Amino acid sequence: MTAQDPPSTAPPEPACPLPSRHYGQVVMAHGGGGRLARELLETLVQPAFANPYLAARHDSAVWAQGEQRFAFTTDSYVVKPLFFPGGDIGKLAVCGTLNDLAMAGARPLFLSAALILEEGLPLADLQKILESMAQAARAAGTWIVTGDTKVVDRGKGDGLYVNTAGVGLIATAATIAPSAVRPGDAVLLSGDIGRHGIAVLAHREGLAFETALESDCADLSGTVLALLEAGLEVHCLRDLTRGGLAGALFEIAHTAGLDIHLQEPAIAVPEAVRGACEILGLDPLYIANEGRFIAFVPAAQADRALALLRADPLGAGAAHIGQVVGPGGTVQLETAFGVRRVLDLPSGEPLPRIC
Amino acid sequence: MTAQDPPSTAPPEPACPLPSRHYGQVVMAHGGGGRLARELLETLVQPAFANPYLAARHDSAVWAQGEQRFAFTTDSYVVKPLFFPGGDIGKLAVCGTLNDLAMAGARPLFLSAALILEEGLPLADLQKILESMAQAARAAGTWIVTGDTKVVDRGKGDGLYVNTAGVGLIATAATIAPSAVRPGDAVLLSGDIGRHGIAVLAHREGLAFETALESDCADLSGTVLALLEAGLEVHCLRDLTRGGLAGALFEIAHTAGLDIHLQEPAIAVPEAVRGACEILGLDPLYIANEGRFIAFVPAAQADRALALLRADPLGAGAAHIGQVVGPGGTVQLETAFGVRRVLDLPSGEPLPRIC
Repeated sequence: MTAQDPPSTAPPEPACPLPSRHYGQVVMAHGGGGRLARELLETLVQPAFANPYLAARHDSAVWAQGEQRFAFTTDSYVVKPLFFPGGDIGKLAVCGTLNDLAMAGARPLFLSAALILEEGLPLADLQKILESMAQAARAAGTWIVTGDTKVVDRGKGDGLYVNTAGVGLIATAATIAPSAVRPGDAVLLSGDIGRHGIAVLAHREGLAFETALESDCADLSGTVLALLEAGLEVHCLRDLTRGGLAGALFEIAHTAGLDIHLQEPAIAVPEAVRGACEILGLDPLYIANEGRFIAFVPAAQADRALALLRADPLGAGAAHIGQVVGPGGTVQLETAFGVRRVLDLPSGEPLPRIC
Repeated sequence: MTAQDPPSTAPPEPACPLPSRHYGQVVMAHGGGGRLARELLETLVQPAFANPYLAARHDSAVWAQGEQRFAFTTDSYVVKPLFFPGGDIGKLAVCGTLNDLAMAGARPLFLSAALILEEGLPLADLQKILESMAQAARAAGTWIVTGDTKVVDRGKGDGLYVNTAGVGLIATAATIAPSAVRPGDAVLLSGDIGRHGIAVLAHREGLAFETALESDCADLSGTVLALLEAGLEVHCLRDLTRGGLAGALFEIAHTAGLDIHLQEPAIAVPEAVRGACEILGLDPLYIANEGRFIAFVPAAQADRALALLRADPLGAGAAHIGQVVGPGGTVQLETAFGVRRVLDLPSGEPLPRIC
């Protein structure tokens, strides 16, 4: 560069190593259950917050206090629309946090609720949602004990965003986490998949299907605790929210460093979900659920666990869908014709704003 | 009514007794520290969630587990802009939750962080905010152990909304709550008031004052724990966020059913805050702070408590500003001229979106 050069117009180097450099800013896919969300977590959130609890990559953080172990979790909900077949943002927020506690093997102690209201939200809608939250908490034998309300200007929200956090008491001495998954473990799925994502999408976009589809939104803590109370050796649990079944399995396979093989015919997909996915070009394996989970148990206990799950209305459609085969980190799907394909993590959630 | 009557066009009665009937929808003031926020809480939130923990009207919910007592709290942050003199939304969110725990006499155990990102937020801004959250947590000896990220469409957020929740271990056997306040208690204020609200407002609106004003945003747990560790009998603590000093005192007087008298000359107001308030027609007593609190202690311990507070940089400006005089429920301010006026709770926060 000489004195005659004009001032450089090149953009300054970013002060930090940024993920998704070609974006440089938040895109919708950062909120999905896919690769961009993981990248955001791994390159921005985890380096900043660096600690062993967060690094466990579990639905809840777990700590011991005296003789007891506690779980702590949080989620914000931005589902659009606020009311959908089978639930509303309030029920979703309470069940979602109850489920994150359950996936750590925890019985819920207490919940919090923080509301970001948009100016103009009808108070009657707010009341319905609050009652729905209270009912879901009551049904789970817990309470919403602390909270907060903020209001943002008209246009700066979508009616209502809800955050719930929860504290639970862990109901087992065993470690339930991706790190506890072992080769040979059976993978059990608690029911059919795809209902929540497709029900919300259909309602939002005004799509009509032959069969009415409702979200599977439900509190799974009772179903999970029944497995633990029966003394089953549960290695890992995960609810199938953003990223769907594939996203959850991918995350566990990756964290545990193990290969998981699935048998596609064992995975139930409701006819209406299958139809909608065909029309829309979506794969049910990646669609979010709000009342389904997978459990990893030793193969020898798979039948007993299945029987227990099926005795519960929320596990009536439970199935043994695959097994952990050994070191690796991939998820592979065997079709009915014996063809095996490796599942990939998509860049983002195929359906935005479903939770 | 006869068969000839036209169909009634009167609006149907709302299905529920709604607060602010003349609104019927959320207004900005519902998010302030004033009457409308209280009405929303008392007529919608508390009836729906009805439980003794929430009814305690404390900054944190408190429960016993074995020999120990825990505190649990949450807050969402929607401050505008995201960066302001003296802090940013991340520091604010972490300190705010640390302070809510501290006001229950709790040492922080763990924090959660849930982010609602708006599409288009520069990742460099997000990184700065995450680092600011991590730094504030680290300085308090705690960690952000669990979290969540959602993304909303461009225009449906304000860059970033942050929720933090926290769990703490209570550091005293005594009850610290409005219900523990006694006639004769001294009211101590930890420093001057109005910095946070005016600093954010000035920055947002591009107002320039002669003196640069910074937010007082700070973690007060160390300051509070020093009082408890010294064995002082602390009856109640409250940080002076939305609603300011007046809002906090009003809430405590009302919950405890006791009258509180304040000596106005004892309440320090920075020159820049006083000037801004005069120009803008605001009362510093109602302006939000993020690093100030009040403590209720027996009159006989007031001097010792003051000395301890003043030994801490965050309590350097501490003062004895009033006392609890007996049954009632009002807050009364004695001016320098001996005139006494009853403070009222405004309908909403005079400055929206400051936290």
